[in-house]
Amino acid sequence: MPTLQNESSYHQRLSALRIERGALCVGIDPHPQILHQWGLNDDADGVERCSRTMVEALGDVAAVFKPQVALFECHGSRGMAVLERLLADIRVAGALSIADVKRGDIGSTMAGYARAWLGDDSTLRADAMTVSPYLGFESLRPALDLARQTGRGVYVLARTSNPEGDTVQLARDEQGAVVAQLIVDAAQRENEISGSNHVGLVVGATHDDLGVNLSQHTGSLLVPGIGFQGGRISDIESMFTTSADRVLPAASRAILAAGPSAQSLREAAFSLIDY
Amino acid sequence: MPTLQNESSYHQRLSALRIERGALCVGIDPHPQILHQWGLNDDADGVERCSRTMVEALGDVAAVFKPQVALFECHGSRGMAVLERLLADIRVAGALSIADVKRGDIGSTMAGYARAWLGDDSTLRADAMTVSPYLGFESLRPALDLARQTGRGVYVLARTSNPEGDTVQLARDEQGAVVAQLIVDAAQRENEISGSNHVGLVVGATHDDLGVNLSQHTGSLLVPGIGFQGGRISDIESMFTTSADRVLPAASRAILAAGPSAQSLREAAFSLIDY
Repeated sequence: MPTLQNESSYHQRLSALRIERGALCVGIDPHPQILHQWGLNDDADGVERCSRTMVEALGDVAAVFKPQVALFECHGSRGMAVLERLLADIRVAGALSIADVKRGDIGSTMAGYARAWLGDDSTLRADAMTVSPYLGFESLRPALDLARQTGRGVYVLARTSNPEGDTVQLARDEQGAVVAQLIVDAAQRENEISGSNHVGLVVGATHDDLGVNLSQHTGSLLVPGIGFQGGRISDIESMFTTSADRVLPAASRAILAAGPSAQSLREAAFSLIDY
Repeated sequence: MPTLQNESSYHQRLSALRIERGALCVGIDPHPQILHQWGLNDDADGVERCSRTMVEALGDVAAVFKPQVALFECHGSRGMAVLERLLADIRVAGALSIADVKRGDIGSTMAGYARAWLGDDSTLRADAMTVSPYLGFESLRPALDLARQTGRGVYVLARTSNPEGDTVQLARDEQGAVVAQLIVDAAQRENEISGSNHVGLVVGATHDDLGVNLSQHTGSLLVPGIGFQGGRISDIESMFTTSADRVLPAASRAILAAGPSAQSLREAAFSLIDY
């Protein structure tokens, strides 16, 4: 049975939804304190209620949902079963899903992670996954290739907003290029080869000076922390100059904190989309 | 109810088991081709049969088991439930477990991963977990702290054996130190502060020149790929000079390929322990 994933690329589907719904990625981060605020228990049932309520309330509003997988994983296999149901909800709602997993390994192990999140037959399949390149950009090859094959996407951690990331991300190679720029450039080479822009980047919104040049990047730029971690949507245009139209701002707590009322969740989301 | 984890540190328990059983970490990597070779299906049931057979056969032989979590995760929540049962088997066998997950994130998300793998109440609790520092060593703080509190361990990716890792791991800071060395040094500072050596490192065995100095490291050094990826146990003494007694060699396929016969698995393990 052909799926929507096989019929168009992730980038095409994302572009279409951006036009239809606006550029907003709703992070689903059922942290203990959010569960408490919503009057839910800090267990798999609480996570299910919180996360599926988000899609019930916003499934026709948000272009993309980004479940934060750590917060399902910490409830063990029951939490992962909740995530499977949540990802199915997102598909039914006609939105896209980014599994925020930041996986990174080598060889057949990396292939296992790719299969989990990008494989057509996986119960955990999403439209895209986030990956981490400490083992080198090329170590991500199984995910890059499977995403291209299945019409899905990969977001590679490049330059993040936490200050302690500098030690790794701003270290330099022998030619003087910073690690984050090497990742950005390698991602763009993939996009040029594939022609499908299936490789996106995760880039922080709260650095005044990112230290990287994103102007050549033709994939999606996932920018977390909008409305909470200090990033502002109004900053985006000035930060990302030539590629502002490729930016996918992600908001998590700024929306979650408005719950559990569906009406309040929708208002919080709309306030971020209207920019 | 106090657990063994709370009564002694990971490093103490590991040191005791090394004396009792020898220094061997058995990787449990139920890859599709291993499942095929064992006559099992490439599904959660096949993974359960393969992985639990490993602990049945080697539970009194190996000091440590290291499940490769990607290969459970790719079977969704059912695969993760298998992993929960496997981790319980390892506890019952009196061996230690390292969840090879290479997780890395920031803040409360990293706290979620720490809770999943190092929390006393988690169904996925292991004795140690592997973590990835692309977001900076300090981003791992929730795992470093929870490991210390619960008598567990953390293995930080530092210098891996895959050649494509060089671009990140051998990049240099403004003082000329390579990223991998900064990770090694930060891990050692943690060990000095805690006095419990709860922070180990993942270091590849197949680099002739690692490019890092491990002589000051007092935690455990997890060295994967023994007997298969080109690493040889006989190399260990020359590679790790002053810290050879802290090296924990991990073998996966070299043992798995001998299965499913319990006798053959034991012979393969003993051949690696006797060095």
